[in-house]
Amino acid sequence: MQAIAVERGSNRPVVVDVERPDPAPGEALVRTLRVGVDGTDHEVIAGSHGGPPAGDDHLVLGHEAVGVVENPGDTRFAAGDVVVPTVRRPPNGPNEFFRRGEPDMAPEGEYHERGIVGKHGFMAEYFTSPEEHLVSIPASIAERGFLVEPLSVAEKALELATASRSSFAWEPESAIVLGNGSLGLLTLAMLRERADYDRLYCLGRRDRPDPTIDIIEDLGATYVDSRETPVSELATAHEPMDFVFEATGYAKHAFQTIEALAPNGVGALLGVPEPWEFEIDGGALHKEFVLHNKALVGSVNSNVRHFEAAAETLLDLPEWFYDALITGVHDLDSFETAFDDDDTTIKTAVQFSAYEERR
Amino acid sequence: MQAIAVERGSNRPVVVDVERPDPAPGEALVRTLRVGVDGTDHEVIAGSHGGPPAGDDHLVLGHEAVGVVENPGDTRFAAGDVVVPTVRRPPNGPNEFFRRGEPDMAPEGEYHERGIVGKHGFMAEYFTSPEEHLVSIPASIAERGFLVEPLSVAEKALELATASRSSFAWEPESAIVLGNGSLGLLTLAMLRERADYDRLYCLGRRDRPDPTIDIIEDLGATYVDSRETPVSELATAHEPMDFVFEATGYAKHAFQTIEALAPNGVGALLGVPEPWEFEIDGGALHKEFVLHNKALVGSVNSNVRHFEAAAETLLDLPEWFYDALITGVHDLDSFETAFDDDDTTIKTAVQFSAYEERR
Repeated sequence: MQAIAVERGSNRPVVVDVERPDPAPGEALVRTLRVGVDGTDHEVIAGSHGGPPAGDDHLVLGHEAVGVVENPGDTRFAAGDVVVPTVRRPPNGPNEFFRRGEPDMAPEGEYHERGIVGKHGFMAEYFTSPEEHLVSIPASIAERGFLVEPLSVAEKALELATASRSSFAWEPESAIVLGNGSLGLLTLAMLRERADYDRLYCLGRRDRPDPTIDIIEDLGATYVDSRETPVSELATAHEPMDFVFEATGYAKHAFQTIEALAPNGVGALLGVPEPWEFEIDGGALHKEFVLHNKALVGSVNSNVRHFEAAAETLLDLPEWFYDALITGVHDLDSFETAFDDDDTTIKTAVQFSAYEERR
Repeated sequence: MQAIAVERGSNRPVVVDVERPDPAPGEALVRTLRVGVDGTDHEVIAGSHGGPPAGDDHLVLGHEAVGVVENPGDTRFAAGDVVVPTVRRPPNGPNEFFRRGEPDMAPEGEYHERGIVGKHGFMAEYFTSPEEHLVSIPASIAERGFLVEPLSVAEKALELATASRSSFAWEPESAIVLGNGSLGLLTLAMLRERADYDRLYCLGRRDRPDPTIDIIEDLGATYVDSRETPVSELATAHEPMDFVFEATGYAKHAFQTIEALAPNGVGALLGVPEPWEFEIDGGALHKEFVLHNKALVGSVNSNVRHFEAAAETLLDLPEWFYDALITGVHDLDSFETAFDDDDTTIKTAVQFSAYEERR
């Protein structure tokens, strides 16, 4: 079967021929429908993140997949079920994090990530997976199922941030998403669905006209241009934010978030920047942290519960949002286009097979 | 009656004569037993924090009080009940934070603090308080009741930090308290009582022999000298910490805590430093925050629930701990000694009247 991989030493994705996998006991064979492309894929391709399984000369890409169960084997699934696989796998048999269903809390070294580090991904005509790493989703969102994984990362961050405010009465009204990439826009749509927030903002650095600004405004949120309003000035230029969701990977944003927060607010950090030294007023930030009971929580990856929450959210999002967000779905014979990234690209996917209603 | 106050423009506490207050409806009159002295009192005396009620030329000091109900008025209390007052009061009638019993979550401007800012404190022979701001404590800890308020601040921080880890299975084993002042030592004793922590550490910058190091070691904890082992090196020199409790007010500690934490760990920040600019590797800290699901929570003040938790904890602490921690209890005629602060001072209080068993 065909797969999209990056070979060791290369920095562009290619189609390779690999053997179609056979499901082991406890595994299902899944026919791949679509696999999304995100920033992590670009980092993996560039060689700055992750890498192939030990001993292999290539890594099959892809961690945002949706597929249809082709052969359920001895699993709980039936042929035709639409499923999304989770990303992390235990490197040496189940460890405590996997045993309790929290691979997202495993520290470095205690996990592989399919399509990213140590284990082949889902950009292939078929893949197998142990049933505990497969999540059923409604057939009605089969074609958007590749958005479940990225949105699950936002669902987890929201859960973690909300938990951090659970020991007191927290009634957030304002929230800002830092970053207008596909994760930022998915997060904004998620926050809008939750209806907890009276006022939503999204920060970017784009000139109008711009399709992401259109999405932000069509979601009823206010676009904030970071070139005019730095994160450190959000509180005065707009309002103090009860919730800040950082999805830029711009390290200064992590610390400026403390200033942007309202009293008792929380910032969720999701970006993964490179080392960068800069000066902060650590005294003022520390004081502000304490006197106003603020919190910052880092969040990475997600588990089955968050995949399920993401599928619920996707069911509720309006059609126009998908039409605007998904800027390209490309067949295998023009897969390179899915990896193009310019100002008109928001979210792309590679299509391995078309979804047909359950037989 | 006599009270200890600091006059506007002065920076030393003096005894003043003030009128004995009459309880209004809903208030009790309390005969003061003891009032503790802490770092905030020194800041108030020095004029760097807080100040007198509007229109007054002095501020009666004291926010760590314990007393006996002298006249319960129409409250739920009985004469002879041992009570501890909370510190925050609404400046202009109850606001939402006070209405829901969470004055500790009120932002600046929405509270006064008795003995600190805007309202007279408890260093007087008698004080009155609305019943909702009084907490009953067992008579057996009447003489240590002035420790309830400072410990309540640690109880709140622990509650907030624990809540931030409540969305996943968090089983902390190691904790460090940064700071070996009286709050640090009370916190260490509290953490030991909780028995969640297999290994406890406490950071200071003192040479042996030192009475605080003796307390740390008698509590079964490891003393860490910050001159030898900076907070940023704790993880390698000792072990990554599941919980860091910052009680130094040293701003670099707030950010070094991110490095000291174990994966999925949380740092509670309690210090209130002055502005101080310094350089950090913000990129590396941001990345570490995210990839290991770390959290920082600022925490200030406390509410009735935390006062009750603190009283419970104090009941369980061993006798030797109090003997070592409380280095002086001074009558009104030698009250100045309670404000002395040298390397032999850990915790002091002023005694306004002796506790006698319930009539």
